Amino acid sequence: MPDLLPSWRDTPTKTSIVEFIGAVADPDADTFVPEIDRVAVFDNDGTLSTENPYAQVAFALDRAAQLGKPTTPDELKAGGVPAVLELVKLTHGSITTDDFNTAVRTWITTARHPRFGRSYASMVYQPMIELLGLLDANGFASWIFSGGGADFMRVWAPDVFGVPPHRVISSTGSVTFQMGDAGPELLKGTDLTFLDDGAQKPISIHQTVGQRPILAAGNTDGDLPMLQWTAGGPHRTLQLVVQHTDADREYAYDKDPLLGSSTDKLLAAASDHNWTVIDMAADWSTVYPPEP
Amino acid sequence: MPDLLPSWRDTPTKTSIVEFIGAVADPDADTFVPEIDRVAVFDNDGTLSTENPYAQVAFALDRAAQLGKPTTPDELKAGGVPAVLELVKLTHGSITTDDFNTAVRTWITTARHPRFGRSYASMVYQPMIELLGLLDANGFASWIFSGGGADFMRVWAPDVFGVPPHRVISSTGSVTFQMGDAGPELLKGTDLTFLDDGAQKPISIHQTVGQRPILAAGNTDGDLPMLQWTAGGPHRTLQLVVQHTDADREYAYDKDPLLGSSTDKLLAAASDHNWTVIDMAADWSTVYPPEP
Repeated sequence: MPDLLPSWRDTPTKTSIVEFIGAVADPDADTFVPEIDRVAVFDNDGTLSTENPYAQVAFALDRAAQLGKPTTPDELKAGGVPAVLELVKLTHGSITTDDFNTAVRTWITTARHPRFGRSYASMVYQPMIELLGLLDANGFASWIFSGGGADFMRVWAPDVFGVPPHRVISSTGSVTFQMGDAGPELLKGTDLTFLDDGAQKPISIHQTVGQRPILAAGNTDGDLPMLQWTAGGPHRTLQLVVQHTDADREYAYDKDPLLGSSTDKLLAAASDHNWTVIDMAADWSTVYPPEP
Repeated sequence: MPDLLPSWRDTPTKTSIVEFIGAVADPDADTFVPEIDRVAVFDNDGTLSTENPYAQVAFALDRAAQLGKPTTPDELKAGGVPAVLELVKLTHGSITTDDFNTAVRTWITTARHPRFGRSYASMVYQPMIELLGLLDANGFASWIFSGGGADFMRVWAPDVFGVPPHRVISSTGSVTFQMGDAGPELLKGTDLTFLDDGAQKPISIHQTVGQRPILAAGNTDGDLPMLQWTAGGPHRTLQLVVQHTDADREYAYDKDPLLGSSTDKLLAAASDHNWTVIDMAADWSTVYPPEP
């Protein structure tokens, strides 16, 4: 069998992941889980991709400047969540879904991360891409539940992570159906219908997947309810916590860099329940994939 | 090639369906659509299953009686949408998703349709089940977008229609995540978050599927935006309208029997745009499947 996780070092973390997948996919094991129930859920920012800055915030800042209403990252940080919501309203609303799709598609091919000089679609973790591939090869359906926006992520995430668009679920804004000059269209509004974070994540999982996951991965306290909900299921389950410990190759922090979301409760729960903590510096031999 | 639509008579309706599927699945045809884009969307009540009565309303009436607050179908009909919403609050709220699942599972195995004496899970159209199978065999992903509730439908619809739970999308009520005695649980509230009908259907399709369908099927004006949205897509598309013309084997009506939803606009659009109208009496040799 080829090693489908070549960017993972041979640490107990890798062992626990490989052992779990084997245990639930082996039809002769007591721990076997039927394929239909092999659902895995992942947070995106900070779990599958770098969140310093959030790709979507970088997009929003660039688009705000284009729209003649520039904001700086520092102004945004000082303004906290309300400032981020204002920026989202300005840059994600009053536009049809088709036009928004085009705007994101254009941006993602040209914008570059300020420190690494890479496209944002490649500011993703190669070891996690490999994990998604290993899960797929073992009959899992992997879903992404992000606090970001689905209309933003679905432009690039399906290609990068190998999941179909419908398995990318995120925060959602109000949308209106209307008849435009060229036929029916969906107009994105300026109200955030729900923020897919915290307790909303298991609710979104229930409403969209309709099944309880057996694997969940996150990196801040906003992911804790998703991991708790997964851990409480009837099958054997695995919870993964990504810890940002690698200042050289990525970042080292214990609060998310823009909004300051804490990781204390998540790490405490991981310790209490023996969840698997991924130490980026120790567990990963490579962080980013080769640029396409 | 075996005929995968044996319950369809050899009418122009069947021909138009078979021709469309062949045209989009044939890699050598100009009309070829890549498999990832072969998305089909179906209304449920009146399109895939009998809506006289709605299975979910029959469940709600039985559950209301069990809860000591009986209502009659006539009272419900007289009260219209507000009465239905009151009944939904009473019978679908203040219960965990696990307990609700159990209640529906118990009911669906015992309740019988008053006229046909069949279980509600078999009050579904055999020709439409065959169509779902034909679509699946041709690389389509079929989704159900229903005005009913996902927690109700997902208990029985996946087995009956052969679609996974996540492809059953419906109206949604408020849900709360909480820690119960036995671990985390989701508590269904009494507020309807959205009613998946009319203009909400294309919005739900956008938010959950994230792709524009190429086939849509419905039976009342509440399905018109879904069919319009599908018809406006870039690929070749097919719109199906199920017309209830069979008083002997099912029902004959032009307004939905409980809420009186009209079919006038849908049929006018079908006529204007040459959509395919399914005449149950003429086009189907069989209506219901054998009882399991």
